[in-house]
Amino acid sequence: MAKIIESVPNISEGRNKEVIEACVDQIRNTPGCTLLNYSSDEDHNRTVITYMGSLEGCEEASVKLAKKAVELIDLTKHEGAHPRMGCVDVMPFIPIKESTMEECDELAHRVGKRIAEEADLPVFLYEKSASAPHRQNLAKIRKGQFEGMAEKVKDADWIPDFGGQRIHPTGGCVAVGARPPLIAFNINLGTSDLEIATRIGKIIRESSGGLKCVKAMGVMLEDRNIAQVSINMTDFTVTPLYRVTELVRAEAARYGVPVIGTEIIGLAPMQAFFDTAEYYLQIEDFQPDVQVIENHLL
Amino acid sequence: MAKIIESVPNISEGRNKEVIEACVDQIRNTPGCTLLNYSSDEDHNRTVITYMGSLEGCEEASVKLAKKAVELIDLTKHEGAHPRMGCVDVMPFIPIKESTMEECDELAHRVGKRIAEEADLPVFLYEKSASAPHRQNLAKIRKGQFEGMAEKVKDADWIPDFGGQRIHPTGGCVAVGARPPLIAFNINLGTSDLEIATRIGKIIRESSGGLKCVKAMGVMLEDRNIAQVSINMTDFTVTPLYRVTELVRAEAARYGVPVIGTEIIGLAPMQAFFDTAEYYLQIEDFQPDVQVIENHLL
Repeated sequence: MAKIIESVPNISEGRNKEVIEACVDQIRNTPGCTLLNYSSDEDHNRTVITYMGSLEGCEEASVKLAKKAVELIDLTKHEGAHPRMGCVDVMPFIPIKESTMEECDELAHRVGKRIAEEADLPVFLYEKSASAPHRQNLAKIRKGQFEGMAEKVKDADWIPDFGGQRIHPTGGCVAVGARPPLIAFNINLGTSDLEIATRIGKIIRESSGGLKCVKAMGVMLEDRNIAQVSINMTDFTVTPLYRVTELVRAEAARYGVPVIGTEIIGLAPMQAFFDTAEYYLQIEDFQPDVQVIENHLL
Repeated sequence: MAKIIESVPNISEGRNKEVIEACVDQIRNTPGCTLLNYSSDEDHNRTVITYMGSLEGCEEASVKLAKKAVELIDLTKHEGAHPRMGCVDVMPFIPIKESTMEECDELAHRVGKRIAEEADLPVFLYEKSASAPHRQNLAKIRKGQFEGMAEKVKDADWIPDFGGQRIHPTGGCVAVGARPPLIAFNINLGTSDLEIATRIGKIIRESSGGLKCVKAMGVMLEDRNIAQVSINMTDFTVTPLYRVTELVRAEAARYGVPVIGTEIIGLAPMQAFFDTAEYYLQIEDFQPDVQVIENHLL
């Protein structure tokens, strides 16, 4: 079958339905590319769009999305809870099937160059496409946000990779890059004590010395009156779902607190579930590509 | 996408490579049908062939296979450890994607009729396609084997569904029917005591009062010097993989014996692994059709 990749850009508009639909239409109307999902958050004033397709299809859709976003979204008037630096804020390319990280990196370079030229938006390459180690992390690139970026790019460390040493006056700038699939995974605890979720979040996350490729924090689910460990898994091939789940179970047990459920938010790759089944069932020599019937259809 | 089904016929030849290849060629050379696997057992003198495709593709391939088998395989000269009643012994049709059990049942009727007419082999409809409750179980139909079937079909209870009250003189007869996917699943125990595996097999299998849709027995893996609970799961939507595994773990624990590994033999449906991940991770409201990226490619 053909090479398939996924992209999950975030645009800085989560309230104006007309603007959101006009942007999403760029994906809907591009051959070789399939819209999977889009989801707006009014508080964040931000929309996540998920699509999948061939390298060529996703390239066209992504460039068209950037052109439409810079036309319709004005960051000088934007307010929202989520940090942002551009009308299209971030645009990751993710290998899914028969495609490699290297191909996604090459695509990020092509799309970055085209967005700078055709949408007039300066581009930072990030994650696996970053041009220097200090430019891998999106939060570090975006620090200062739209309002501070015009000044920030004067620093030699923060010159955009494409589009010159400037930002677009209303569209800002955008981060484009290749990365592994991210899994948004939440673990719900049988307690209303947020402090327990917060402590467990600190124990499991990489930045506090926990598991590699895990970001985590405690949050309160007010409507259910339970505490949750909210997790982003940035590479499930390094730290798998089952390891995070078992570590949270073990740490919660010291408080006499059970895991009462988990949530997979949005989309996740098939392999993450095969890995989970393989671990818990202790399957020897499991070969999902050969042994799972439907994989012969892919 | 198109309707996809699977078929896993067994032919009564596991030694003569020319005959086996000539039979498998019938699958290879049929459009709309993909050969997934074939595996011969010399002791059983039997070959299992697995293929997948459209209803039409699998119909053609299955009829062609029966015609080639009756031409090349002579049951009057057949010896092997496995019970058998025909040159093609059994031919199940299994719904995989966008197809229903009812469609597989209709296909079994069409194929059964054609095999009787075109290959001159009388056909028993079995499992979900059986014409009476006492004819669902393959072992009951096959009892008496090739050597006894000519006499058996004189009984009003055992008249073939297609092809008349007779068997083919060298080809015998064949069971054709719709059934759910079967998972061959073995659980290896950390003991060389076969008796423990035998007792656990008895506890978990339906026929001794255990779990529905589970067949199980203890066997010795001589080369590894460990005992194994060898299991056939005839409907994983009724009794899932994780329930069997956890029950075996619990029963083995009373002997201080751990489960040291499991084996998925051959092919298994994707949903069985999603169900497993959902159970162990306690995923709330999991929707694999929507949430697993690759499912959007199927």
